Amino acid sequence: MNQEHFGKVQIASEGFWGKRVQNVREVIIPYQWKILNDAVPGVPKSHALANFRIAAGLEEGEFYGFVFQDSDVAKWIEAASHCLRYYPDPDLESLVDAVIDHVAQAQQPDGYLNTYFTIKNPRGRWTNLRDNHELYSAGHFIEAGVAHFQATGKGKLLEMVVRLADHIEARFGDGLGKRRGYPGHPEIELALVKLYRAMKERKYLDLAAFFVNERGRRPLYFELEAKERGEERVPWSFWTPEYCQAHLPVREQREAVGHAVRAIYLYSAMADLAFELEDETLFAACRTLWENVTEQRMYVTGGLGSSAEGEAFTFDYDLPPDRAYTETCASIGLVFWANRMLRLEENRAYGDVLERALYNGVLGGVSLDGTRYFYVNPLTVFPEAVQKRYDLRHIVSMRQPWFPCACCPPNIARLLASLPDYIYSQSGNSLSVHLFVASTLQTSLQGKGVSLTQETDYPWGEKVLFRVFPEEPFEFTLAIRIPEWCRDPRLSVNGGRLDLPLHLSQGYAKVKRFWKKGDVLELWLPMPVERVRAHPAVRDVAGKVALQRGPVVFCLEEVDNGPNLASLILPKDVKFSTTFEPDLLEGMVVISGEAVRESRQSQELYSFARSERRKTFIKAIPYYAWNNRGAGEMTVWVREE
Amino acid sequence: MNQEHFGKVQIASEGFWGKRVQNVREVIIPYQWKILNDAVPGVPKSHALANFRIAAGLEEGEFYGFVFQDSDVAKWIEAASHCLRYYPDPDLESLVDAVIDHVAQAQQPDGYLNTYFTIKNPRGRWTNLRDNHELYSAGHFIEAGVAHFQATGKGKLLEMVVRLADHIEARFGDGLGKRRGYPGHPEIELALVKLYRAMKERKYLDLAAFFVNERGRRPLYFELEAKERGEERVPWSFWTPEYCQAHLPVREQREAVGHAVRAIYLYSAMADLAFELEDETLFAACRTLWENVTEQRMYVTGGLGSSAEGEAFTFDYDLPPDRAYTETCASIGLVFWANRMLRLEENRAYGDVLERALYNGVLGGVSLDGTRYFYVNPLTVFPEAVQKRYDLRHIVSMRQPWFPCACCPPNIARLLASLPDYIYSQSGNSLSVHLFVASTLQTSLQGKGVSLTQETDYPWGEKVLFRVFPEEPFEFTLAIRIPEWCRDPRLSVNGGRLDLPLHLSQGYAKVKRFWKKGDVLELWLPMPVERVRAHPAVRDVAGKVALQRGPVVFCLEEVDNGPNLASLILPKDVKFSTTFEPDLLEGMVVISGEAVRESRQSQELYSFARSERRKTFIKAIPYYAWNNRGAGEMTVWVREE
Repeated sequence: MNQEHFGKVQIASEGFWGKRVQNVREVIIPYQWKILNDAVPGVPKSHALANFRIAAGLEEGEFYGFVFQDSDVAKWIEAASHCLRYYPDPDLESLVDAVIDHVAQAQQPDGYLNTYFTIKNPRGRWTNLRDNHELYSAGHFIEAGVAHFQATGKGKLLEMVVRLADHIEARFGDGLGKRRGYPGHPEIELALVKLYRAMKERKYLDLAAFFVNERGRRPLYFELEAKERGEERVPWSFWTPEYCQAHLPVREQREAVGHAVRAIYLYSAMADLAFELEDETLFAACRTLWENVTEQRMYVTGGLGSSAEGEAFTFDYDLPPDRAYTETCASIGLVFWANRMLRLEENRAYGDVLERALYNGVLGGVSLDGTRYFYVNPLTVFPEAVQKRYDLRHIVSMRQPWFPCACCPPNIARLLASLPDYIYSQSGNSLSVHLFVASTLQTSLQGKGVSLTQETDYPWGEKVLFRVFPEEPFEFTLAIRIPEWCRDPRLSVNGGRLDLPLHLSQGYAKVKRFWKKGDVLELWLPMPVERVRAHPAVRDVAGKVALQRGPVVFCLEEVDNGPNLASLILPKDVKFSTTFEPDLLEGMVVISGEAVRESRQSQELYSFARSERRKTFIKAIPYYAWNNRGAGEMTVWVREE
Repeated sequence: MNQEHFGKVQIASEGFWGKRVQNVREVIIPYQWKILNDAVPGVPKSHALANFRIAAGLEEGEFYGFVFQDSDVAKWIEAASHCLRYYPDPDLESLVDAVIDHVAQAQQPDGYLNTYFTIKNPRGRWTNLRDNHELYSAGHFIEAGVAHFQATGKGKLLEMVVRLADHIEARFGDGLGKRRGYPGHPEIELALVKLYRAMKERKYLDLAAFFVNERGRRPLYFELEAKERGEERVPWSFWTPEYCQAHLPVREQREAVGHAVRAIYLYSAMADLAFELEDETLFAACRTLWENVTEQRMYVTGGLGSSAEGEAFTFDYDLPPDRAYTETCASIGLVFWANRMLRLEENRAYGDVLERALYNGVLGGVSLDGTRYFYVNPLTVFPEAVQKRYDLRHIVSMRQPWFPCACCPPNIARLLASLPDYIYSQSGNSLSVHLFVASTLQTSLQGKGVSLTQETDYPWGEKVLFRVFPEEPFEFTLAIRIPEWCRDPRLSVNGGRLDLPLHLSQGYAKVKRFWKKGDVLELWLPMPVERVRAHPAVRDVAGKVALQRGPVVFCLEEVDNGPNLASLILPKDVKFSTTFEPDLLEGMVVISGEAVRESRQSQELYSFARSERRKTFIKAIPYYAWNNRGAGEMTVWVREE
């Protein structure tokens, strides 16, 4: 058994992320537990745990929910396990054990685990990989099993998911008598790589590779199995092979198409396999897709998916802020993918996007109190339009307590609970810092123990203090991501300023020296308010800017700026000021500055007259914090003079 | 029998409208005739005339098309009849007679006329007024019958539609044993008013009034008849009582809601009835709705309907240019309505909107050659988005030769063919000019003959010369609409300039004098290029302007301005120049001027850098003329510095 990453990371309790991770433990995990038990009145029914009790024969009843309802439980177990890994909690551990017991009783003697089919359609198993999410749900259980073992050392769930994985491995692949199927919704590929790392069983890696490599082969498995089922036509109007990235073999895919979450999970799996198999062609495909996603099809918040139809990518530079789909899970997936790309190549291109998605697209998906969620994360919201325009019907103006299709909330929980895994990495005698999070790492480099602490109030503060404590002085490299958003980064060691450009390699400052106890590395990342402009081909935001400070994208809300945010204009040369407002919500930096508001005396719909322009002040808050003070207009993109 | 308007109008053959009306006669009417006979290869099948032959027993076959397929034939007869009224043409007249013969043979002994039900479902007659368009199609035949009689003096079709109207009048209304139904799609109300005027039979007016007044009464007729049919739920996801304006009694309706064409036809009928019945409450409702439509819910082109879902109005100031529905028929309906409002009250508010809709929303619906049509008329088109975005699937980038649902093309034909009816009106001893069209009117005022000619190359030229030829000098008022778009209109009589404000009444210059033969009234309407700005609440075009010159709204096309029209910016103080380009398409005024194009060296999706701005030149053509030179981007709204 292998730790997936390495070392031990403790996030400091008081920092930005400390509070957030505390919220996951103290609010999100218990809240979602209640939801999964249908113990929160007035929210969409989950029934996810009841499904297990029914499948286990412990309770009478009918299956309820989507065919992938089980995955909510799996993600909850995974999230809880991550918490247990960093914050032992006997009560939570017992609760997780109890859930695992229920799940265990729902697992079939042959290892199969899926309450939908066990309860409703035992003969329908594995007959429709295109739609039925059996491999997807299995993937989430496998991830949960690995996480639970890593957190607690307990083998029960891991053994269960090994049986589940073996059940699948016996049925799918290119071996004799196996079916050449692969999942409609990628996810299990990531899980199988984790299982391979945990169990060191090559067959899991091979199965993941099969699922990835088989995708796109003609004739399409999805068409063959549909024929076997006697299906006359696909019941989904939006379904095409592109929808689930099966239109081409993955190495021939050059553009991100189809369902954004499926795409990003697939690309993450491709990166995992490129790493494990040292597969250069797969890595090249990942890089091509990465460039397409992040340089042509990504919102400034790290949101992905420009169209509600099929929850999908559309085409280059099509990034309408009001009609965005930008599912929270897609930004979460972008964090997964970026993290895996970083493992392949230490390049800040990946780390910067990871940070962008994390602070904006992901965090925006959950209310500050942890109990309200967005599934869809547009960059401009006008509540009346959301309510009355059919083409905005996928958008809601307020975060919701739960969803009938509840993939996002437990996905946020498992990502945030596993945040420590994203901060550092190591390779050989190099230790890398990808995220600036007040935390302590204890690890060893080539057999020598070292601890590293970060002291920072990033993303509000501009400084990060690293203290290095090797057991004994030894030479190693500390590699620190220098975000591209910073125009004038400074780095010093024990008070002596480094010539940063000399040390930069693909955006990482590499400081190689004999480190000794108490060495201090200070990173200063000046964070003036920046105006972000999109490529001119992004027609929907032409003439507009987004405000960004450090990694945080800001937005204007009606509660601070009055109605009709489209009437506000940022003058060309105005300087913005920033203030930390400790009493605003959970405390945050806000941006303020002079602006201009257009208005008109006349009520005419069309007029030759210029609008009047009055001086006003705008106040911008971090995008992730929007809609924590009631409904109202919001926009990330603001007109510029 | 009464002429619907009065007098006799001849449009000069060489002017803007002369060429257009000639195109209707020489191209559109013959082209649509072929289409209705399925004699144009490669276009959506019409089968509309075949349906009549089949219903008449002249041919074997199945009904094909929409339940309102008949109305295409009715509108074609009406359009052809308007042509015959102004331009006698024995060949066309024989053709129309032949069609009428076929239609006559399809009419049932009881007067019923609808090929769908006659062929497919004789027992289903009148069982679903909500959906089945029987009254709508009947209305179009009644309009055709009146027009044909007015044009030719032949009574055959008029007698047929009288029998049809009587058939309907015997079944619907508030009399004993009648059903209290009214049409899902208003249209017959307008027709019945015309029939009343032609036949002086009060019962037709009463039936029209019943249909209008009954609308919105609870319980809804549509729900009662649905129950009778045993229908469990409305098969249209978008259907609500609002969809067909049956949510409230018409006098209580304050906002334009639902299907835009239905709404505007209804409002037109309300105006007709307010006029005929001198119904002040109905007139007041019309005024309230007029204000809502034209001051909150109308595109700058006179387009109506902001949403594809339900082809409908949405809410105040919701006028996205790219997602507009703006069905050609809705702009046609707006011309109908404005014309009827003018009859109630001579106020340029109505005439100006009529002109706006006519020169922009209506004319844009047909190619300059007369054989290609738009059903939907957005104000911004980016072909790649139209092709790839699901929420733009209602839009096409190119005018089409025909449509499966072909309401618009013959509707354009009948409106343009009847254009002479919209230019003048008279009341008492006042003669009014609503449109500036090179033409001659011969009429009599209180028994005294007078002829009036307009010489103008409006909308390109700024001058209109009126020559007055009374049989003998007498006193009457010439009332001339002075468009509000004109900042500095000038009017002179026989060379002597009038103090225009002194003569203005609700935007009409009223010149009362003893007119004698050869008197000349000269109107000068200076037409600088104006920048139109929408109300700031129209969020989708904030910071943008539309160019307008005279009544014509302009647009930029890719063919003249290169790709990415969103990257163009009009500097604040630039002067535009205008040129008449005789060789551009059919000859038109174009606007040109300096502008700025934003671009960027870097291909980064997001950047802190300002875009570079290079000087460039823009060329704008009339909106109605767009897409006559192949596919490409188009926009009415352009960013302004």
